[in-house]
Amino acid sequence: MYEQLLRHPFTSATGRGHCRAEDLVAAMRAVELALAAEQESLGLLPAGTAEALDRHLASDVFDLEALAADTVKGGNPAIPFVKQAKAALPDALKPHFHRGATSQDIVDSALMLVLKPRLTRCRHLLTEATAAGRALMMDHRGTAMVGRTLMQQALPITFGAKVGQWLWGLHQAGERLDAVLAEGLYVQFGGAVGVHSGLDDSGVAIMTGMARRLELAEPWLPWHTDRQPIHALGCALDGVAVAAEKVALDIALMTQTEIGELAEPAEAGVGESSSMPHKRNPVGCARIRAAARQIHGALNVLANAGAPPLERGLGEWHAEWAPLLDATLLLEGALETLRHLLDGLEVHPEAMARNLAVTGGAIMAEPAARVLQGVLASDEARRVAREASEVARRDGVAYAEALLAHERVAGSGIDAEALRQAVRPESYIGSSRQLVDRVLERLDG
Amino acid sequence: MYEQLLRHPFTSATGRGHCRAEDLVAAMRAVELALAAEQESLGLLPAGTAEALDRHLASDVFDLEALAADTVKGGNPAIPFVKQAKAALPDALKPHFHRGATSQDIVDSALMLVLKPRLTRCRHLLTEATAAGRALMMDHRGTAMVGRTLMQQALPITFGAKVGQWLWGLHQAGERLDAVLAEGLYVQFGGAVGVHSGLDDSGVAIMTGMARRLELAEPWLPWHTDRQPIHALGCALDGVAVAAEKVALDIALMTQTEIGELAEPAEAGVGESSSMPHKRNPVGCARIRAAARQIHGALNVLANAGAPPLERGLGEWHAEWAPLLDATLLLEGALETLRHLLDGLEVHPEAMARNLAVTGGAIMAEPAARVLQGVLASDEARRVAREASEVARRDGVAYAEALLAHERVAGSGIDAEALRQAVRPESYIGSSRQLVDRVLERLDG
Amino acid sequence: MYEQLLRHPFTSATGRGHCRAEDLVAAMRAVELALAAEQESLGLLPAGTAEALDRHLASDVFDLEALAADTVKGGNPAIPFVKQAKAALPDALKPHFHRGATSQDIVDSALMLVLKPRLTRCRHLLTEATAAGRALMMDHRGTAMVGRTLMQQALPITFGAKVGQWLWGLHQAGERLDAVLAEGLYVQFGGAVGVHSGLDDSGVAIMTGMARRLELAEPWLPWHTDRQPIHALGCALDGVAVAAEKVALDIALMTQTEIGELAEPAEAGVGESSSMPHKRNPVGCARIRAAARQIHGALNVLANAGAPPLERGLGEWHAEWAPLLDATLLLEGALETLRHLLDGLEVHPEAMARNLAVTGGAIMAEPAARVLQGVLASDEARRVAREASEVARRDGVAYAEALLAHERVAGSGIDAEALRQAVRPESYIGSSRQLVDRVLERLDG
Amino acid sequence: MYEQLLRHPFTSATGRGHCRAEDLVAAMRAVELALAAEQESLGLLPAGTAEALDRHLASDVFDLEALAADTVKGGNPAIPFVKQAKAALPDALKPHFHRGATSQDIVDSALMLVLKPRLTRCRHLLTEATAAGRALMMDHRGTAMVGRTLMQQALPITFGAKVGQWLWGLHQAGERLDAVLAEGLYVQFGGAVGVHSGLDDSGVAIMTGMARRLELAEPWLPWHTDRQPIHALGCALDGVAVAAEKVALDIALMTQTEIGELAEPAEAGVGESSSMPHKRNPVGCARIRAAARQIHGALNVLANAGAPPLERGLGEWHAEWAPLLDATLLLEGALETLRHLLDGLEVHPEAMARNLAVTGGAIMAEPAARVLQGVLASDEARRVAREASEVARRDGVAYAEALLAHERVAGSGIDAEALRQAVRPESYIGSSRQLVDRVLERLDG
Repeated sequence: MYEQLLRHPFTSATGRGHCRAEDLVAAMRAVELALAAEQESLGLLPAGTAEALDRHLASDVFDLEALAADTVKGGNPAIPFVKQAKAALPDALKPHFHRGATSQDIVDSALMLVLKPRLTRCRHLLTEATAAGRALMMDHRGTAMVGRTLMQQALPITFGAKVGQWLWGLHQAGERLDAVLAEGLYVQFGGAVGVHSGLDDSGVAIMTGMARRLELAEPWLPWHTDRQPIHALGCALDGVAVAAEKVALDIALMTQTEIGELAEPAEAGVGESSSMPHKRNPVGCARIRAAARQIHGALNVLANAGAPPLERGLGEWHAEWAPLLDATLLLEGALETLRHLLDGLEVHPEAMARNLAVTGGAIMAEPAARVLQGVLASDEARRVAREASEVARRDGVAYAEALLAHERVAGSGIDAEALRQAVRPESYIGSSRQLVDRVLERLDG
Repeated sequence: MYEQLLRHPFTSATGRGHCRAEDLVAAMRAVELALAAEQESLGLLPAGTAEALDRHLASDVFDLEALAADTVKGGNPAIPFVKQAKAALPDALKPHFHRGATSQDIVDSALMLVLKPRLTRCRHLLTEATAAGRALMMDHRGTAMVGRTLMQQALPITFGAKVGQWLWGLHQAGERLDAVLAEGLYVQFGGAVGVHSGLDDSGVAIMTGMARRLELAEPWLPWHTDRQPIHALGCALDGVAVAAEKVALDIALMTQTEIGELAEPAEAGVGESSSMPHKRNPVGCARIRAAARQIHGALNVLANAGAPPLERGLGEWHAEWAPLLDATLLLEGALETLRHLLDGLEVHPEAMARNLAVTGGAIMAEPAARVLQGVLASDEARRVAREASEVARRDGVAYAEALLAHERVAGSGIDAEALRQAVRPESYIGSSRQLVDRVLERLDG
Repeated sequence: MYEQLLRHPFTSATGRGHCRAEDLVAAMRAVELALAAEQESLGLLPAGTAEALDRHLASDVFDLEALAADTVKGGNPAIPFVKQAKAALPDALKPHFHRGATSQDIVDSALMLVLKPRLTRCRHLLTEATAAGRALMMDHRGTAMVGRTLMQQALPITFGAKVGQWLWGLHQAGERLDAVLAEGLYVQFGGAVGVHSGLDDSGVAIMTGMARRLELAEPWLPWHTDRQPIHALGCALDGVAVAAEKVALDIALMTQTEIGELAEPAEAGVGESSSMPHKRNPVGCARIRAAARQIHGALNVLANAGAPPLERGLGEWHAEWAPLLDATLLLEGALETLRHLLDGLEVHPEAMARNLAVTGGAIMAEPAARVLQGVLASDEARRVAREASEVARRDGVAYAEALLAHERVAGSGIDAEALRQAVRPESYIGSSRQLVDRVLERLDG
Repeated sequence: MYEQLLRHPFTSATGRGHCRAEDLVAAMRAVELALAAEQESLGLLPAGTAEALDRHLASDVFDLEALAADTVKGGNPAIPFVKQAKAALPDALKPHFHRGATSQDIVDSALMLVLKPRLTRCRHLLTEATAAGRALMMDHRGTAMVGRTLMQQALPITFGAKVGQWLWGLHQAGERLDAVLAEGLYVQFGGAVGVHSGLDDSGVAIMTGMARRLELAEPWLPWHTDRQPIHALGCALDGVAVAAEKVALDIALMTQTEIGELAEPAEAGVGESSSMPHKRNPVGCARIRAAARQIHGALNVLANAGAPPLERGLGEWHAEWAPLLDATLLLEGALETLRHLLDGLEVHPEAMARNLAVTGGAIMAEPAARVLQGVLASDEARRVAREASEVARRDGVAYAEALLAHERVAGSGIDAEALRQAVRPESYIGSSRQLVDRVLERLDG
């Protein structure tokens, strides 16, 4: 299928290996067996039922092609799955299978089973990416570079502080993902209309027991048309996507030929152009950004499908499936890439130093103005700082000298050395080191 | 893959059969051969080159698994495709392959080649759905039913007029799709930076020739980072999705058990519930709505990726691929379903008549008020019409009689027969028949 | 402005009253004063500075029209705000104003100040809506009605259980909003490039102090281009919107003329049609749905703007402002409406009972099949249950009698009374009562 | 209101001046008068009715505050508008006002009346922006600069060709806008349920006549719940937004301090930082990007609201209003900014030349490889070209010399002069000039 070339390159191969149609069928089977086991333990089914079902429903019972084809008819994969399963059961077992359940119980629970290890791995990748970033941050906690606002050089920061910002974004997103992982992946069990029809008060007990057996969270109520859990999950995925996307955009901008402060890890065959041998493209960044944009689209589908009618979605539920899986695997892929980028990122401090000097120091106009305020009025000081920056840029002289030569400054009695010192970028990095310490405190805390 | 159960049931099986990874490779191959053929015909390559390339590049030259795996490295499938192709060529042919081209030339053109027959089929399905709807409209041009606004019974319409509305929506969307099909599926050819580097003025000639050979539209300029063509295509797809979604929502609402005016075509195994034997679910409508919502999400991705930086997207381009294919195949699937629905839709005129009567005729308050204005002031007439509707609903009497019995009407000298006639729903269908004629005029015109 | 007629009807009038341009200016002023006060307390500014600034910057110092006009030039309202403020200050105070701050510090913090009471009120409205819903749930914990899946009658539930579902959705969304309110509305303070340039290690202390003074949360780092806080806020708003939208859709569907189980609170002038006196439109539901859709759109903008470049957004930041305020006020309006709906909702238990009977009891095919399984094989039982439902629907006979008359059942020795009892809807409400108890436990716990 | 500071800076002041609440009321009034006039001309109303209505409904008849407040109740502004109007009419005229119309007829038509001049101005601004861009293109048709793909220097283009790309994107978007302007802004007239209830076959005639009187397009059918026209309009707006956003992103990237090829027009007070005197921010680009992102969000709302139920939206219609107006005024604002940018853009050819040289010519590896293929095998030639580019970058020597000094090249008998010529960027601009000619042909054609 086209996905192989057009979507999968942005998703995780590891993840895909656990999200095959077979895996979904295995998950649906696990849900049905947990249901039967719990009903059996509550005395609602004869002893031995679950074991017997397990035995009769070997994985080769299911015909995937037929299952896919018949999903169209009923609108969801549980319907043909239940049919195929029942066909493989002896008559005596048939009524004990899928008892009191509805398709959505099986599909929602199975999706959670399939998603849980993927989200766990996303969390793990995030931790690894953060660890790689932590090392980068520590290596460069004192590496001055220019901060850029609205794409213009502004004032110095350190590369460590920038990495700290990235990590802090990833950390916050990770906490949101943690919350979903810890208590947001619910089993679904409500029966035909969400009130455990025919099971009465055993319904809730079964729901609880299934959650325990499947190691999913126990929902407070069935959630067939309460999609808060899906909405929260979608938001958590998108939050991580946004945090990764921010890193990717910054890296890509810093790899620009004219800036050259960073390069993606060098690797044979990666980032090559089909036509230009000299290029080293930030392909990892492009992949992360491509994934993130598609994840935003998935969240958009989930948000717009968040309010299904009455007791079952009329397409809203169905519209969630592919976007949920796509978003998860795209995120897993993006985090693999992010980890790789942070792990092997090439940092060019010499380029950072070069770029700090590129305006002749004019980026130091603000601190210059502050020193000038010792001898000039506030507005005047800013004007002079600006004019000297234009001279420095135009004439290629050092900013400090351009300032000292300005007619309003020369002879003003200003302390030339203090001014020279004030406009040294490396000494004007504000709280950069302290911010790194704060990030460390939280990462390690 | 999960797509098989979670996305494909909403897409077209026919369409998928032509959008396999193999088909993309075949399309990339066709683009390269058209490029070589055109360069040969312009004398830029030795005579016989294209034929030789064709011969050496049999489809078994390409290793799909490796191609998919290596796509990750360069970020797009053309890079490993070109590598695999070159590896299969004798040295003398290597420089003649992919000459002057860039990855995006190959991928964009190949996508258009793959999409074109799909869009053509969408157009065809739309025509067939419209033909089925036309028959439905003609059968029911005089079938009165109640029009409903904000989910409340409002005033009579005909089912024919409603179907006419559906068809008119589909027709407009179809015209937008036609425009894209006729002149919006462009070949891409611009070389590394979109200016035919190294080819000089032959570049445009090659671009033109490739378009002719591949039966794609000739772009005015290369469009590597001018994504207007993709934006227009996404909009056209979404327009059709919206038109189909409207029909699906109306049908689903009219199949509600309490309304029962329509039912989806009866078909073994379709619309069954896994737990409730009595149900006949409007699964076709659910499928169309699920597809449409995902198509809206795809358009959202395309719109947000519509402005890539400089001469190549940094993830923006890459983010288009899967949403474009997804949206197209989801639409093709939705239109197959729509055609099926309109073809076999069960219409229950008796339910329409029953529902027209369900308020005791109170829906006729507006025409009633109009007749009452012959003897009462406008505001008064509306008040009386409303009060009588409450009496009719409460007491289960016919609306006309409730009106005639109202204290402000009785003895007012009103023409009772005219009032009775005025509140007959079947005679109050406005321009319904004329609207059907207008639709016919355009469909057949 | 057009907003008055086209957006404001969906927003909260109370909320709008606190989100005027004047309120934003007042909030920007409060941020600057908190900055000065904190700097003063840290000994960075002369004693008395904050008080002097407060005195000189009376609200009449600011010219709103000029401020709005000049916002265009710099791209954000803080730039002209600072200019106007400085123009009103004596020269000696000028350098003490906005010291070490950047526009984004002022605007982000001011937005949080303006949003906080609005979100607090949203939370309050949610609590009140929930309280109203709680009463409704208790009144109808035993009111049987039909559950509907894919718009078809499925099996019985209670209206209490349905309301419980609504409340549970609102409760979850409320918890997400609580989390943002408790610790997600951060002060912003980072200076020009987010590292407290020129303030060194005082920067973090100032940030902390400002948060305390302004009663906002203290961020771990400045968040100029780490938009996780905004993303989380947008997600929380959208979660509540989705929960409210679900209630609105259910209510609207249940007010359908043919269903008539609910009606919006009757109120003079509300829900009238401009042309049809008999109608009572679920206008509150329409308003909530209109608001929710626009909130989804706002979240989409926030998600797509979540990764700004380097140290300042290039339009990403700017794109957040209006969607954030729009979404908040739309939500506040939607929750006012929701509270009103749940407070005065008209419930028609007789219509619920009528609708339970409308299929001749055929919705009870599942429990019927279960009883039939005492004498028939599973598949057979389901077939008979289905066939009898068709007979009941067609002939208008009671479902129990149709079942007993079926050729496979008559004479089978089945317990007729047990079968009759099994197909009584009122006794087949599953865990409905228990689910209500569970909701109570959480709401009251 | 907050909009003044948070949304309006991104919209057009001119546009806002014509989209006040008063303007909407005037437009609704115009629609009602056109309805009456047409009904009068068809003999359905007494002669002189329209003139009498016109006289009684002076603009001071309407109380805007009350209108806004009452819009909440009915859910749309036409309901209180009709009430206020009727209150101002003598009893005899009351029944002649709003005859046969529904709220949506008035609101939809009024919106089209308000939007039409705005879209016309957008079209006009687009033409002016294109004219400014045309001059820029002509001035720089031969100005070589580097093309950049994935943010990396790739191969030379000309700035003229780049501007040509921008213009071609704008041109295509303009054509889509033209199509909507020419035949997509429809009058709405269908009465309560879209079939001209009570008017019978005059309905269509009235619809036609109103279109003529209001200079709007005549719809083929009423379009209350056929939102294709709104969808097409939203798509056209977004298409233009995307085209402008592309230009803004390119300009912003080219203004980066380290690149410095462009600067926004210098203007007092524009692009200043509140804290850094040396900066000149590309604020116009940021404003355009902020607007474009919000327009994408608006399209997303429109697409998701495109399929309203039955004969009237249940919030879908209502959700369109603000996004439509927002999007239009944001676009008008963005185009004003775009025109200004293209009109006064500062171009720095010397920076373009400097950047072409920044890699030591290594961007010319592709043409180098092509020349080397005269003496080396294809793969070998590419390898040598790559290795020499690394040497040139590392050692700061000219690329041609690094090539000639390579061990595989030296002594190979290659034509040194031809190689030196081949790697001159200025002579390797491909079809750049021809592409400019093609753009000219279409712009002027």
